[in-house]
Amino acid sequence: MEINGVEIEDTFAEAFPIKIGRVLITAATKRWAEIAATEATGFGTSVIMCPAEAGIERFATCDETPDGRPGVYIQICTFKFDILEHQLLERLGQCVLTAPTTAVFNGMPEAEKQFNVGFKLKFFGDGMESQKEIDGRKMHSIPLMEGDFLVEENIGAVSGIAGGNFFILGDSQMSALTAAEVAVDAIKELEGTITPFPGGIVASGSKAGSNNYAKFMKATANEKFCPSIRDKVPDTEIPADVKSVYEIVINGVSEEAIKKAMAVGIKAAVTVPGVKKITAGNYGGKLGKYQFRLHDLF
Amino acid sequence: MEINGVEIEDTFAEAFPIKIGRVLITAATKRWAEIAATEATGFGTSVIMCPAEAGIERFATCDETPDGRPGVYIQICTFKFDILEHQLLERLGQCVLTAPTTAVFNGMPEAEKQFNVGFKLKFFGDGMESQKEIDGRKMHSIPLMEGDFLVEENIGAVSGIAGGNFFILGDSQMSALTAAEVAVDAIKELEGTITPFPGGIVASGSKAGSNNYAKFMKATANEKFCPSIRDKVPDTEIPADVKSVYEIVINGVSEEAIKKAMAVGIKAAVTVPGVKKITAGNYGGKLGKYQFRLHDLF
Amino acid sequence: MEINGVEIEDTFAEAFPIKIGRVLITAATKRWAEIAATEATGFGTSVIMCPAEAGIERFATCDETPDGRPGVYIQICTFKFDILEHQLLERLGQCVLTAPTTAVFNGMPEAEKQFNVGFKLKFFGDGMESQKEIDGRKMHSIPLMEGDFLVEENIGAVSGIAGGNFFILGDSQMSALTAAEVAVDAIKELEGTITPFPGGIVASGSKAGSNNYAKFMKATANEKFCPSIRDKVPDTEIPADVKSVYEIVINGVSEEAIKKAMAVGIKAAVTVPGVKKITAGNYGGKLGKYQFRLHDLF
Amino acid sequence: MEINGVEIEDTFAEAFPIKIGRVLITAATKRWAEIAATEATGFGTSVIMCPAEAGIERFATCDETPDGRPGVYIQICTFKFDILEHQLLERLGQCVLTAPTTAVFNGMPEAEKQFNVGFKLKFFGDGMESQKEIDGRKMHSIPLMEGDFLVEENIGAVSGIAGGNFFILGDSQMSALTAAEVAVDAIKELEGTITPFPGGIVASGSKAGSNNYAKFMKATANEKFCPSIRDKVPDTEIPADVKSVYEIVINGVSEEAIKKAMAVGIKAAVTVPGVKKITAGNYGGKLGKYQFRLHDLF
Repeated sequence: MEINGVEIEDTFAEAFPIKIGRVLITAATKRWAEIAATEATGFGTSVIMCPAEAGIERFATCDETPDGRPGVYIQICTFKFDILEHQLLERLGQCVLTAPTTAVFNGMPEAEKQFNVGFKLKFFGDGMESQKEIDGRKMHSIPLMEGDFLVEENIGAVSGIAGGNFFILGDSQMSALTAAEVAVDAIKELEGTITPFPGGIVASGSKAGSNNYAKFMKATANEKFCPSIRDKVPDTEIPADVKSVYEIVINGVSEEAIKKAMAVGIKAAVTVPGVKKITAGNYGGKLGKYQFRLHDLF
Repeated sequence: MEINGVEIEDTFAEAFPIKIGRVLITAATKRWAEIAATEATGFGTSVIMCPAEAGIERFATCDETPDGRPGVYIQICTFKFDILEHQLLERLGQCVLTAPTTAVFNGMPEAEKQFNVGFKLKFFGDGMESQKEIDGRKMHSIPLMEGDFLVEENIGAVSGIAGGNFFILGDSQMSALTAAEVAVDAIKELEGTITPFPGGIVASGSKAGSNNYAKFMKATANEKFCPSIRDKVPDTEIPADVKSVYEIVINGVSEEAIKKAMAVGIKAAVTVPGVKKITAGNYGGKLGKYQFRLHDLF
Repeated sequence: MEINGVEIEDTFAEAFPIKIGRVLITAATKRWAEIAATEATGFGTSVIMCPAEAGIERFATCDETPDGRPGVYIQICTFKFDILEHQLLERLGQCVLTAPTTAVFNGMPEAEKQFNVGFKLKFFGDGMESQKEIDGRKMHSIPLMEGDFLVEENIGAVSGIAGGNFFILGDSQMSALTAAEVAVDAIKELEGTITPFPGGIVASGSKAGSNNYAKFMKATANEKFCPSIRDKVPDTEIPADVKSVYEIVINGVSEEAIKKAMAVGIKAAVTVPGVKKITAGNYGGKLGKYQFRLHDLF
Repeated sequence: MEINGVEIEDTFAEAFPIKIGRVLITAATKRWAEIAATEATGFGTSVIMCPAEAGIERFATCDETPDGRPGVYIQICTFKFDILEHQLLERLGQCVLTAPTTAVFNGMPEAEKQFNVGFKLKFFGDGMESQKEIDGRKMHSIPLMEGDFLVEENIGAVSGIAGGNFFILGDSQMSALTAAEVAVDAIKELEGTITPFPGGIVASGSKAGSNNYAKFMKATANEKFCPSIRDKVPDTEIPADVKSVYEIVINGVSEEAIKKAMAVGIKAAVTVPGVKKITAGNYGGKLGKYQFRLHDLF
């Protein structure tokens, strides 16, 4: 299968269940909303050593937010709901309540699982906090040095999917990287998915475990896809004309959201000259509850 | 004392010791260096509930980096050195090694305290890693999907200072906020300091403890500086014409660095129309090892 | 009439006919599309002394562009069609053909008026140019140093409207400016309109003619809306609590587009604290072919 | 000669005299200074069909501007001084006076040639303007809707140089483009030079005249450096492994400034993987008053 002259390998991405909290941050301007969201989702690439996986989902226009201000949806992801509750409290309390002009709304008011993060944050008001309603939502108003901070009583969460992915193989590092950038930009327009790595991109796609350091390394470089050691790896998957590979990892609230993001991302990536092949990462189907076949996306 | 017609209160900022690791991240472009640095320093506003305080110090031009590429200095701060070592390993391993085109250099090669973070990260190479020298520095080269990632053997750290600060009081929220932005931009040109909060700015300056929820709240809103409840707080410090207050919190490697940043930041802030007063946060001198008198800065 | 507690004055914006060419620029990434669009629409605030009025309309996602790449719609506006043709040729030839990775598509293929700008630009290929079709569009392919530049044969233009506007009155300069910024961001999401001034904002709203220098000044400061000379202007329109006023000027392809942009912009602006009043600029109805009453927008 | 393993061809860049006006724009924040500067220098890539060549030189920190605010230096370039005066008046009057929070200072107070642009702009004040001094400079204060706009009496200009250049040849379009970006970023740190094309980069390096359309084309594609027609051009200068070429064009106030920018830009460019060769554009030395030999730069 080819798109725009680029081979799409007949393989699949393997993905896993994760718990996802979704938050709508609004602010005086789009720029301040993004600054708060960036701080709140930082140090959030992989649960291997980060306290959560986190990222900006998409921006919200003024006409779709409860307070009529510019907004941004973020997702915070952990394996367990109890850890998720802590992460929501810490990231919203330390990175959004502290950020200029923000308010926090429930990004999933319809979800079954709801954490009363706003209720807990209100105690920062030290007795001066109050309650109000905005667009039918129960909000806590906390007096701050900048003015009043508004946070919704609950933040909803769902069981979602982590590790949706595809690989971009390029004839140069910059070809592959630019394709990765354009893929991430395209995915950022969509509902329901995040790409949690730096700039949305993984430079260091890994395999589970280790050939040489198995006792202390949970994940190591995926040598089959490392171009600089192609000649030393007998089962390399790197074609002769490929110099660099980037992976896009996608978390999302549903299989449909992951599929949409993979399709849109791949279609954007193959428009960049120098992209040689698209493939995906899996564990041979042994581990993954979810499998996304590339050829089924289009 | 007045600068540019704005009153500088005769008070002082009270600050505390902290441990600071300093890292130089380089990348193919300034933009990619910033993306990695932003991810690595995210979720890093206050050690109250973040795993570290962290931020971008300043950008480095090509002629001052060991590999001749654009760079950015970041600082990671924690109370103890052992926690700092973990944070360096986790943040550099998860947020910089994974980021497109980056390399990591020791930001304090001359410090007495050195952590062998690069040595530990090299095991991600799963036996394919190697060593090389760049500009006299001992580097580990780890094959990745994007190409080779270079990280220096050691990352240096020092005992520094956290909590340097000043408050900007404005006639409107946007006056105070814009003054805060211009202060942060000015501080970002300097050597040795960071402003760890979102966009460098604190919307929610706090006091230690709580009047009403002392049993479970370590820090709560500093009600004396909250304009919206001015009428309910007998000992309010908010003048009648002030609508909003932002705090700039500064961490740095030395007293001189903190003083320079406070002076430069305040001088920048008072150029914005609508700024009514500059003051600072302290605990009456009871707790702070360091005191920075505003009037001594100029 | 009030929105969000802010008075909307019972007045109207007066606007004039103008000719508008609309162009879709695509590029390898959204960032490069924006860079080209910014250069092509620069020095384009007012036809009083700029060769054209010009601006970015909105971004286009990959799935709506003929080549599947990220794009941006721009508008170029002049009073006459013949000047418009020259401006299109000059701005696209000098600022988009020269810009990295761009292609140029007709932003109004359905318009009656079509200029063969692409046909004229192809001669830059010096005989090596060729033709191809993309998504049913007739494209010229010009070999460049970077690779091949694609430009569509024709660029469409229509009779549109210039000078749609509203004024934002704030209790401080930064309140009014932030409200202007958020209004511009909101308008940038819409189809069919641009805000041609720097950052979309006019700091220096003017009146036609001059009280004191009528012989050589076609337009001068609108002293009735200048807060710093409020006490010297008997018929000032500046309320006592207003310190600053910004104007948003809107050009668009139709009355509907202008109305939508005014409504969306005003609703966004009044969410910013410190906005005291919204009004609009007119000449008492003597000159304007188009009148947009603020109260009819909502 | 090689730098970082990349061949630097033994050739020279040929450059021409031009007149340069230099302006310092300050604003409330660095961001607003940049917005004004971007508008004022837009539609300014080449005097072939633009009214001027123009660009941002470098940013100025608060401690080096007369009003203590963030600033940006821009240059406006034309062949004749009288056209330059008009361009200064139009671009500053339409794109900086109109831009939020800006002030305009003379960027070359020591130059022999001075244009009284500020004196002329003051008439926009319609009799309400006044004079004041800032840091020893004679300023006109013009009441605007946003507040008061300050502009210095004179803007200085010198005879400088246009067309300093170098070419970056890459193994892929994105390699060459990224190298161009990093070169431009590095040059933007320097005093005295601009790179006037979009994003500082030329995608369409040209030759004077035309082989096939000499009657009406003053400049056409430089086919010897066009990779996509390499097989059709007998005297092609494109090596077999090169897919794309970008040119960096540099204008500057002196030969020393041009040399410094070329050296710094080239050293930055060759750090990007995939750059195969650096060369420069000339007319065989027949036309250029200035010649910059690449090998003499290092």
